[in-house]
Amino acid sequence: MNIHITNAEVLLFEDGQFITAHKDLYICGSKIAGVGQEPEGFAADKVIDGTDKLVMPGLINAHTHAYMSLFKNFADDRAFAEWLDKVQQVEDFMTVEDIYWGSMLAAIEMIMSGTTCFVDQTLKSAKPGVTSGPESAAAGAASDIGMRAVISRGLAGVADSEESLMKFGQAVSEMETFKGNELITFMVGPHAPYSCMADYLHKLTAYAKEHGIGNNIHLSESDFEMEIIEKEHGCSPIAYVDREGVFDVPTIAAHCVKVDADDIRILKEKGVNVALNPKSNMKLGNGFAPVEEMMEAGINLCLGTDGSGSNNSLNLFAEMNVEALIHKGNKQKAECVSAQDVLRFATVGGARAIGMAGMLGEIREGALADLIILNLNEPQFVPRNNIVSGLVYSSTGREVETVIINGRLVMENRRILTFDTAKVYEECEKISERLGMKQ
Amino acid sequence: MNIHITNAEVLLFEDGQFITAHKDLYICGSKIAGVGQEPEGFAADKVIDGTDKLVMPGLINAHTHAYMSLFKNFADDRAFAEWLDKVQQVEDFMTVEDIYWGSMLAAIEMIMSGTTCFVDQTLKSAKPGVTSGPESAAAGAASDIGMRAVISRGLAGVADSEESLMKFGQAVSEMETFKGNELITFMVGPHAPYSCMADYLHKLTAYAKEHGIGNNIHLSESDFEMEIIEKEHGCSPIAYVDREGVFDVPTIAAHCVKVDADDIRILKEKGVNVALNPKSNMKLGNGFAPVEEMMEAGINLCLGTDGSGSNNSLNLFAEMNVEALIHKGNKQKAECVSAQDVLRFATVGGARAIGMAGMLGEIREGALADLIILNLNEPQFVPRNNIVSGLVYSSTGREVETVIINGRLVMENRRILTFDTAKVYEECEKISERLGMKQ
Repeated sequence: MNIHITNAEVLLFEDGQFITAHKDLYICGSKIAGVGQEPEGFAADKVIDGTDKLVMPGLINAHTHAYMSLFKNFADDRAFAEWLDKVQQVEDFMTVEDIYWGSMLAAIEMIMSGTTCFVDQTLKSAKPGVTSGPESAAAGAASDIGMRAVISRGLAGVADSEESLMKFGQAVSEMETFKGNELITFMVGPHAPYSCMADYLHKLTAYAKEHGIGNNIHLSESDFEMEIIEKEHGCSPIAYVDREGVFDVPTIAAHCVKVDADDIRILKEKGVNVALNPKSNMKLGNGFAPVEEMMEAGINLCLGTDGSGSNNSLNLFAEMNVEALIHKGNKQKAECVSAQDVLRFATVGGARAIGMAGMLGEIREGALADLIILNLNEPQFVPRNNIVSGLVYSSTGREVETVIINGRLVMENRRILTFDTAKVYEECEKISERLGMKQ
Repeated sequence: MNIHITNAEVLLFEDGQFITAHKDLYICGSKIAGVGQEPEGFAADKVIDGTDKLVMPGLINAHTHAYMSLFKNFADDRAFAEWLDKVQQVEDFMTVEDIYWGSMLAAIEMIMSGTTCFVDQTLKSAKPGVTSGPESAAAGAASDIGMRAVISRGLAGVADSEESLMKFGQAVSEMETFKGNELITFMVGPHAPYSCMADYLHKLTAYAKEHGIGNNIHLSESDFEMEIIEKEHGCSPIAYVDREGVFDVPTIAAHCVKVDADDIRILKEKGVNVALNPKSNMKLGNGFAPVEEMMEAGINLCLGTDGSGSNNSLNLFAEMNVEALIHKGNKQKAECVSAQDVLRFATVGGARAIGMAGMLGEIREGALADLIILNLNEPQFVPRNNIVSGLVYSSTGREVETVIINGRLVMENRRILTFDTAKVYEECEKISERLGMKQ
């Protein structure tokens, strides 16, 4: 479909900075065909009036567990170990249908708050009784609603246990199922250094290398993890997994809260992408990642929400807001980690982390048409003193009215076009009842 | 008008805890006439279908500078002194009409995100050239749109300077203008201990005492303030203003970031209400207030946004979210400062701070009908595992669809009924242009 967006403010990325300019946009098929310049022979199938709107790249959620939207507001305000225990008790009883509906619910919340692509680590389930197919459930949900996703299954265990081999095999065959799907790609998901034995890390990384995909791993999130790894391996989690070759493939390391200068050096040398999760880190009592230090070291930073059980929102505008505030507070330094910085994390940083630099996260001719259209005629954007600041410091995430993913209209005037949202809400309430999650 | 809200989830406050219950609500005139029980002889003028909605008390923003909505996104990501300087340069040129439109813009943003009452400290303008009437401009804006407000003018100076006397006189006569207005009450607004000389503090407090109103003051916000006061008075700002009698009247102390155990003891003994402003404290590099310690001491805490120049949002749901997360992160303690706590700050805590305990901030028979109705049929509230948690951890603030203030419908289905919002946006854009604030 050819889409012409007229008379809009457009967020552009030039020389490493975001600026806004008044432009028309032209979309052909899945791509942006023109920015301010009508492509030759262009004939619009659809015209969107961009008056008083801002068109910007769809945000990229670089770390989440989509199925965990079922866990939102389930077990809050308690110590981390207690929360984790309650969550795991429920996860033992989850079915692949639960993962599908939970992931779909997450996709709806993300689309409605301007996220067009997410990196998922779906159900790990180290315990017996878990069913097959969590990865295709998550991928299927994203594909069915028309959302771009990078799917990995959380894998834990030892290389030669029957269960680990079975889950790895499932993950592999599910990746096969989605070959050729424009929206869905995969990473391998070694869960964490304390849940994957070294030989399993080797096996998973070897697979990733063979298939030209990356690793998506939790790293250095909590004191608990630091203590275990120090005790078992005599070094930091980052040093350990580096030693075991995890970083030999493109890697997204989620969290990186408890990192020191040596860790930062390794992350930089190995080109590791760090997915920040500020709200989750706070909510679970893990603290603040050293974002300013990682920025100064030149590490590619991107932004995630983690799962709805430890946030409890998938609204990346709210996550940007918090990321731009907490370090100013923590360091008592009003000028650190700016609106420009966090907007980069949530767009071009995320694109780079998933190997899509230049194709996602910025508006330019030839890039994929993953775009969101915001209504600027709302009090939080008046006066229009600085739109870029406003996106980070004033927005709610609910100014998003229209969402285009891969050139397809997925939401228009706040109505999702591609799936029956009422059905999703109904199924998720039933799941919550069945799993005993209501309080 | 008699309003009947049917079939809704209602947020109730019982034994110090928020719970939800399925109830009908009955409003007569400005008050809640029945909760679950139809009052005798009740005949509805309007019926609101509460199916899949939550009815809760309107939130109370206990500290803001409404006119500063004009300053949103004006001078972000820079050191505090630089920001303040840029703001003050602009304030020198502000007119009373600017304050009216800026305050109106703030009121619109607050109503649209579920705030029904705000405590304002309006333009201080210690420099020459400022016009008369900022207090009535702010009060007038709130009154014209139908919003409840406690207005104070930021007063600074020495007791016997011509300018200070002039501004004080203005403030007094403006309070007279609004006598009998059900929505508008006043406090005296000594700006801060470093901007008001001791004799001015005495004068202002004496006036407050004589007229049975309170003091609304900034206290212990920054290191800068601590240093000045220590140097000039040999003690903390709290000890200093206590010594000068400021706390002899009911007081709202905004910020209280740099407070120690002695300060906390004074605040508790004198029954001072503390208005927390977490986002502003972070954005200006001032750090985190010791909320857990103040809670343990039994101080009444309430919640504010400060002005849009240092937030830059007036969305109190987002403020609650941040308040419930940052101390968990700062102390690395997942169970401190809960959803229940921050919801109290934003409702009953605020009501108590303005002398309206039992009349605002909670839904009960006989209380004032300041209510907000949220749509629960949105992905961030599905599944309904715990609505109270959801209000703090999942909401965006934009689930608010309908707002009733003093029994009057001010917003319905997200449309403000009582003022021309387009006109306000237009005026504010013109002001921003004139004052050179666009970047």
